[in-house]
Amino acid sequence: MTWQRYCEYLCGAPEVGLTLDVSRMDFDADWLASMAPAMERAFAEMKALEGGAIANPDEGRMVGHYWLRAPELSPKAELRGEIESALAAVKQFAAGIHAEGRYTDVLSIGIGGSALGPMFAADALGHPKTDRMRLWFFDNTDPDGMERVLAGLEGRLERTLVLVISKSGGTPETYNGMKVAEAAYERAGLRFGEHAVAVTMPGSRLDQTAAEQGWKARFPMFDWVGGRTSQLSAVGLLPAALQGLDVDGLLEGARRMDVQTRVAEVRANPAAMMALMWLRATNGRGEKDMVVLPYKDRLLLFSRYLQQLIMESLGKRLDLDGKVVEQGIAVYGNKGSTDQHAYVQQLRDGVNNFFVVFIRVLEDGGATLELEPGVRTGDYLDGFYLGTREALAANGRQSMTLTVPRVDARSVGALIALFERAVGFYASLVHINAYHQPGVEAGKKAAAEMLGLQKRLLAALTAEPKTVAELAPGREEAAYLVLEHLAANGRAVKSGASVEDARFRSAG
Amino acid sequence: MTWQRYCEYLCGAPEVGLTLDVSRMDFDADWLASMAPAMERAFAEMKALEGGAIANPDEGRMVGHYWLRAPELSPKAELRGEIESALAAVKQFAAGIHAEGRYTDVLSIGIGGSALGPMFAADALGHPKTDRMRLWFFDNTDPDGMERVLAGLEGRLERTLVLVISKSGGTPETYNGMKVAEAAYERAGLRFGEHAVAVTMPGSRLDQTAAEQGWKARFPMFDWVGGRTSQLSAVGLLPAALQGLDVDGLLEGARRMDVQTRVAEVRANPAAMMALMWLRATNGRGEKDMVVLPYKDRLLLFSRYLQQLIMESLGKRLDLDGKVVEQGIAVYGNKGSTDQHAYVQQLRDGVNNFFVVFIRVLEDGGATLELEPGVRTGDYLDGFYLGTREALAANGRQSMTLTVPRVDARSVGALIALFERAVGFYASLVHINAYHQPGVEAGKKAAAEMLGLQKRLLAALTAEPKTVAELAPGREEAAYLVLEHLAANGRAVKSGASVEDARFRSAG
Repeated sequence: MTWQRYCEYLCGAPEVGLTLDVSRMDFDADWLASMAPAMERAFAEMKALEGGAIANPDEGRMVGHYWLRAPELSPKAELRGEIESALAAVKQFAAGIHAEGRYTDVLSIGIGGSALGPMFAADALGHPKTDRMRLWFFDNTDPDGMERVLAGLEGRLERTLVLVISKSGGTPETYNGMKVAEAAYERAGLRFGEHAVAVTMPGSRLDQTAAEQGWKARFPMFDWVGGRTSQLSAVGLLPAALQGLDVDGLLEGARRMDVQTRVAEVRANPAAMMALMWLRATNGRGEKDMVVLPYKDRLLLFSRYLQQLIMESLGKRLDLDGKVVEQGIAVYGNKGSTDQHAYVQQLRDGVNNFFVVFIRVLEDGGATLELEPGVRTGDYLDGFYLGTREALAANGRQSMTLTVPRVDARSVGALIALFERAVGFYASLVHINAYHQPGVEAGKKAAAEMLGLQKRLLAALTAEPKTVAELAPGREEAAYLVLEHLAANGRAVKSGASVEDARFRSAG
Repeated sequence: MTWQRYCEYLCGAPEVGLTLDVSRMDFDADWLASMAPAMERAFAEMKALEGGAIANPDEGRMVGHYWLRAPELSPKAELRGEIESALAAVKQFAAGIHAEGRYTDVLSIGIGGSALGPMFAADALGHPKTDRMRLWFFDNTDPDGMERVLAGLEGRLERTLVLVISKSGGTPETYNGMKVAEAAYERAGLRFGEHAVAVTMPGSRLDQTAAEQGWKARFPMFDWVGGRTSQLSAVGLLPAALQGLDVDGLLEGARRMDVQTRVAEVRANPAAMMALMWLRATNGRGEKDMVVLPYKDRLLLFSRYLQQLIMESLGKRLDLDGKVVEQGIAVYGNKGSTDQHAYVQQLRDGVNNFFVVFIRVLEDGGATLELEPGVRTGDYLDGFYLGTREALAANGRQSMTLTVPRVDARSVGALIALFERAVGFYASLVHINAYHQPGVEAGKKAAAEMLGLQKRLLAALTAEPKTVAELAPGREEAAYLVLEHLAANGRAVKSGASVEDARFRSAG
């Protein structure tokens, strides 16, 4: 029974050796058949997208990440040329750096789509013995966090290449990180631009700065590639190439997966099958969380990468007709079997508000050891996956499993492409724009207002202590919070016994 | 209005400088008052627990993690002596290792509660310039993952101290990791026991092995401390002390938080207030996820730590009366402002199935830089927190905020103690046992069955290819999966064009 169901629905991408097993998801053949018309529309929309339609209508943009690994499919010859020359430039630059032998480390400054993919690939594919350079990251505007990274690089800045990665060139965290790095190079008596590389849209503020200051190199980001799908552009490929990873393998894996996930037949298309399973499990309304559980240490950061890809793409207030839908799927997870000792207790016994996406890696690799005749360390890892899948199913908890032969550049490229396509299909199925992020602006705007308020407060502080009502009538709470932060950093002085009675005066 | 509400409900632990702001949670004074009787019962149950009651009835155990930082509260003089001597032994051992100067690295082998706390503390409190030793972890039975850690330690094993941490001494991942480490030491011509330290229950299998082989040291784990609350026992304190962290500060922070969270008055007790907010937000049934968002790089791993503490404690099928309740709260998160570029889009605009626990750190520390007059890198970090809190509230998304002055040993100890207590209160409120993990056994049992099946299959394979139906009638699916893994590792040979037709024969 389970065996028949397993065989019946096993779906794959033979060219990359990947399979998708959905037999432990709660659906039947009738439901799957009933979804054919909706899926037909999704296939058609995807075809239009790949053909160069304005698939991101709110921003009036094409959505072209699939062209990155098949430039010949670009709707215009000009785009094809841009992709091909950017890729050639990345490979040539990395080869030159390796040949030069001057640099040992890379400090990559970026956030969101400019950090999560590079971090995931670096950890999934890196190894202390084969890496050509060591990667470090600034992915926040935390002064303490940046200082700690710089402490790790101390004495080696002249051997450290800096990448500044920002599509718009105006991302504040990235800009701040660049300024902190610049100051560190200057303190070390080094000219920053000599060691700095920009990855950004041609003509952006960052691009202009890099050009004016004569940075070591500049690489383009394309208007039609969003941050969360930029791993196979210069954003992800440049750090990977510098580390010495197999950039061609990443692209080839994605390209092969793209071929498979263009097949307009659900049972032969793992991205379509996965999107339909997500739809079924969540009722198309995010009613269940997606727990991503790879049984492989190298895939630890994949769930963090997928959080952005899936949640930023699908977490939308309005559908394409402007109807309020409040869509999305929450994603979390780390790795097995480690997480079995953390929260599988809740998954099996507790609130049934999730489905699991297991990722299984067939080849053990590494330091496998025979513990008793016929039983090796890797058998335990696989055995724990099999056991957990079984134990969850026994309690009516749903799961699906992606199986890959090994974690290498090809399978990582294929996994990224698979989820990119599944997200696109799912967005079609629930009729939303997967390619914009309007909700992010509100937080940025509110943050900018807070910085404005801070400036006004700093100007309003006097030697005489004042209450927040005096300093910022009508904005007492925000003013208190801003002043509390300033006071903790010696830039204001707080007095008063309680919060209500707090008074602030200027520092020094 | 927001200011009045902020002032009215602000709750804190002045002795550690921590505050809890719940003003952006959806509740009113009447509801809070209505919860007083339930909270009274929770306070009484907590008092009984701390007094030595069998608070984990299924396992017939006392629950004593609060005694670890206040040994004088132990219900028996004998326990107090055990706690005090274990702590003294940890400190003395670490001082001896530092004085000896032989060791530079620590390889810590453990999983779940024996890894998540040590990893969190190491990252939250460590710094390349002040750490006395560098920590590495085996936290899984992934041969490839272990090999990669060993590659990082190559040539330094004789300067590497190994900790093997397992309460029962029988955790398979930890046992396997120990065997892999042992083999690596032997290959390097070193005697493993000379460099190995056991942290386990006296008399356990691991304890016996360590005694027989004359390991360097042994430290006790106590029957009455669960893995997920063991960070302030030798489990967490030994790696911390070796790294050179402030062990007394961790204990003191927890101790002070304990004093505050024993106050039987909700508005003066941040753990009680937090537990009530969780209850309110989730309807006491896990209906919303908890998103943990610390705005500080050092706190990145806190949500992973909390996933175990909260989900393994609260994710229960039965309540204390044996009624099926399927409880729990799903927990995820990484750090701000990084996550704003990942999934805050969904939090603000998408499915409203969560509440946020922000963690705010007032002192910037580190490499803060004036970007323009009056605006520093750390102001952006705090501004993004304030802006996101505001943008979420504007769309009816709930959040609460924990504020600490800085990330140091005291505040980390206090945060751990705060969540431990809140979990205990919440369990009382929903009437479950927070201190057992019955659901974990099923997965282990199923995994053991898979390993048993594997042995039978290896014995049944012949030179003649056979189908899974022939090899394991009635268990075709499980047999196929096990054999697929063996075949990928050269221990069986697979043939056949499709899954249904697959045949397997012995290797070689």
